[in-house]
Amino acid sequence: MHRWIDGQPATAVNLQNRGLAYGDGLFETVAVRAGRPSLLEHHLQRLASGCQRLAIDADLPLIRDELLRFASQLGEGVAKLIVTRGDSQRGYAPVAGAAPRRILQGSPLPAYPAANGENGISLFACQTRLAEQPLLAGLKHLNRLEQVLARAEWQDAEHAEGLVRDTQGRLIEGVYSNLFLVREGVLLTADLSRCGVAGVMRAALLEQAPALGITVQVRDLALTDLEQADEVFVCNSVYGIWPVRACPAHTLNWPPGPLTRKLQAVARTLLDN
Amino acid sequence: MHRWIDGQPATAVNLQNRGLAYGDGLFETVAVRAGRPSLLEHHLQRLASGCQRLAIDADLPLIRDELLRFASQLGEGVAKLIVTRGDSQRGYAPVAGAAPRRILQGSPLPAYPAANGENGISLFACQTRLAEQPLLAGLKHLNRLEQVLARAEWQDAEHAEGLVRDTQGRLIEGVYSNLFLVREGVLLTADLSRCGVAGVMRAALLEQAPALGITVQVRDLALTDLEQADEVFVCNSVYGIWPVRACPAHTLNWPPGPLTRKLQAVARTLLDN
Repeated sequence: MHRWIDGQPATAVNLQNRGLAYGDGLFETVAVRAGRPSLLEHHLQRLASGCQRLAIDADLPLIRDELLRFASQLGEGVAKLIVTRGDSQRGYAPVAGAAPRRILQGSPLPAYPAANGENGISLFACQTRLAEQPLLAGLKHLNRLEQVLARAEWQDAEHAEGLVRDTQGRLIEGVYSNLFLVREGVLLTADLSRCGVAGVMRAALLEQAPALGITVQVRDLALTDLEQADEVFVCNSVYGIWPVRACPAHTLNWPPGPLTRKLQAVARTLLDN
Repeated sequence: MHRWIDGQPATAVNLQNRGLAYGDGLFETVAVRAGRPSLLEHHLQRLASGCQRLAIDADLPLIRDELLRFASQLGEGVAKLIVTRGDSQRGYAPVAGAAPRRILQGSPLPAYPAANGENGISLFACQTRLAEQPLLAGLKHLNRLEQVLARAEWQDAEHAEGLVRDTQGRLIEGVYSNLFLVREGVLLTADLSRCGVAGVMRAALLEQAPALGITVQVRDLALTDLEQADEVFVCNSVYGIWPVRACPAHTLNWPPGPLTRKLQAVARTLLDN
């Protein structure tokens, strides 16, 4: 197993790490193929934005170098990067001058069924609702109990993802993916200014859409938007895009549609480059 | 320094610990005096409740034994207990059979100025608002970025605590304490069913109040309640009770009042037993 802390092989982190104490940090889950991190710039950009919002003074050029070096050694798999505010004594107050810690862990690419991408997946309807916290919305921070609770709601293999809504009932995302709908040729995805994780694959797809002639709306989404959707898909930076073929709890079904297939190819290219 | 993992001396935790990955766990901050944990039953009760709500299958009798043993070795100080869901591979799904980890860390009793308890403290008015998440409300879980952000708002030594409100503007708590108001002899504290940490000192005071002939109201509190309060104090399980003498941002001042003084003595007794 490949595991580094601050660029050195390590398997354990100091008990005083604020990541453990308070979830005081951020992470990125980076697909690695042929020794290279996929969507590297998007990951680094989100990390930079997260560090800025949480006032974590991470050395981003150093993180880039380490990630490249780590990916090169890993070859193929998933590189999980955690950046925490560093170590400190007890107490919430960030300590001036504490050195942020960089943690890298490698794992194999997950063995998802090929059918997920080919035929689409079934979406579980989670009861766990996301709280509205604009200060943390969009960030891939280490405070992930909501996702743990949502993911614990189903154990069957039938559902490959769970649909997560916010406390007002708006559709937000999957437990470990972002959600897109297609309605009359327009691509819809949730506004993530109150809660949710702004995924890098989501960001990359939103960037690509105009050049592909696809109109995008980033806005609040209600259950009626799901009911009226022509196509539904989820995406993340590891598997790319999976069509959603059903949400049984709401007795909804969709065929994998043309826009989903088109973007699936785009996502594949993004991950391979 | 006293540091244990699962009952054994250790200074570092496995990188795969879910406490680090997701803040997937709980903690207790236990004052230790004369080799004994203060408010032991209250801490264990809150921990048990938290484990039940998060479905963490911790061995509570073992935790009690370890905490007693740890406190006996520490003598005097603060024992911070962290219980996480254990280690797992990447992925939010709790792994069946993962052994929850028990982490204990000792530190000296904080050297707070005696004036905090004698003359009262000044309360900073935090801009950071707590999100409403009933699934996590009341728990002392490891997802504490809101507290980190709130505590980072002031650096001066003038304010010993920060007043934290929720996204609707209700008064909830201090950054590391619970808040009580006194109005016409009635003790008021915030309802914590949407957010906030249900502190063990708060619980102990609420239990004692009836026998002391004190009427208690646990309800939503607005800024007007603070403005109309005759007395204000904060409490936690390490320092007991500090009167609040001022909240400069709202140009409010209070003299340390008789009910505060009475409960301060009660808190002292609770911590010493």
